[in-house]
Amino acid sequence: MERVTVETKVLSQNDQLAEANRRLFEQHGVAAVNFMSAPGAGKTSVLERTLRALKSDFQMAVIEGDLYTTYDADRIQAAGVPAYQITTGACCHLDAKMISRALNEFHISEADLLIIENVGNLVCPAEFDLGEDLRVMVYSAVEGAEKPQKYPLMFQTADAILLNKIDLIPYAGVSLEELTANVRKVNPSAPVFPVSCRTGEGVDAWIAWFRHRVIGLRKRTTDFSLCHPA
Amino acid sequence: MERVTVETKVLSQNDQLAEANRRLFEQHGVAAVNFMSAPGAGKTSVLERTLRALKSDFQMAVIEGDLYTTYDADRIQAAGVPAYQITTGACCHLDAKMISRALNEFHISEADLLIIENVGNLVCPAEFDLGEDLRVMVYSAVEGAEKPQKYPLMFQTADAILLNKIDLIPYAGVSLEELTANVRKVNPSAPVFPVSCRTGEGVDAWIAWFRHRVIGLRKRTTDFSLCHPA
Repeated sequence: MERVTVETKVLSQNDQLAEANRRLFEQHGVAAVNFMSAPGAGKTSVLERTLRALKSDFQMAVIEGDLYTTYDADRIQAAGVPAYQITTGACCHLDAKMISRALNEFHISEADLLIIENVGNLVCPAEFDLGEDLRVMVYSAVEGAEKPQKYPLMFQTADAILLNKIDLIPYAGVSLEELTANVRKVNPSAPVFPVSCRTGEGVDAWIAWFRHRVIGLRKRTTDFSLCHPA
Repeated sequence: MERVTVETKVLSQNDQLAEANRRLFEQHGVAAVNFMSAPGAGKTSVLERTLRALKSDFQMAVIEGDLYTTYDADRIQAAGVPAYQITTGACCHLDAKMISRALNEFHISEADLLIIENVGNLVCPAEFDLGEDLRVMVYSAVEGAEKPQKYPLMFQTADAILLNKIDLIPYAGVSLEELTANVRKVNPSAPVFPVSCRTGEGVDAWIAWFRHRVIGLRKRTTDFSLCHPA
């Protein structure tokens, strides 16, 4: 089928560029993390809390993917972390080429943790390797318990899964147990963190895991110790 | 740019096939409606209520778009309406060719209202004309008030916009006034229906508008009166 052929070619070109990004991250000792979710699941809210908590641990930079606006980049800047905005136009995901271009625009060597916030979309972003070391997925629990089966790829390829908005669960008729069991069916190994960015519930456990994991990534990619040890 | 060229070509092919679908709908006097939303916004719940309410008014059929599962088609069948399932694999939207193929699989002439439930995605489905007469968008109010600016195309091209899950608004820190104002900035004319599929609030107003609009569409496409007048 013609459409599939085109898609396969695009993905293969993307994989080559993603590998180049990965080598660049390694050269500079930067841990790169790709944050993905559906629209409105709370990626930026999770990031705001995460960046504020880790500001004294790492030199961070953020690449923001959005179709048109700079709303999210503005929120990240307000949290005191430099943010570079990619506006994709109609494009529903970030790809490795967009990241490669963005990396020319700022001094990646000054960061030791690069966070990439992808376009809000539960389908396409999961197909595109950006050269990241780690994939984090944010899912809004009020989207329902059956979505891991309906949109499996992002759940399957995530290294950590945050189930956000758990404060709304009592009002939304969603079972956290059923949702967690459905996540486990498609991804048996990634840690799952039920959180509420509004109330702060569960956020500390996520931050502790993420800090530890990023330190591990930095140790793997560099011989020298952390610039800003915890 | 290479990627844009490929995309333009795909869209132009799609538009031709969409026109063919539209002619087929017209020939058979079928009103075709494309339901779109992000994942978990409540498209299927809206449809279940809508189908139950309109069962005595129209002969309905539903085409369900999903990546992998038949969950939604099963729910529609349970509501007593025939449903044909398209599983798109990794493809993040329905296109006119998929609809054209599906139309070969069932007797479209037996229906007078065809509802197409698109893949849950706030970006890509809005780019693909399926040949529909009407676009209905379902948005979950708890996804936040700023999304009409961040994901404008679906809001812009919708003929009606349902703001679902308004029962969760008091707990979610979202302003319905701000959300509605933001919708109005990108789409000043489409009717906006705040609803809760859980509590039923606002659903009657939506159903009344939709019934009236479908009758209008059927009058436009056929000379003979409704098979099942209200």
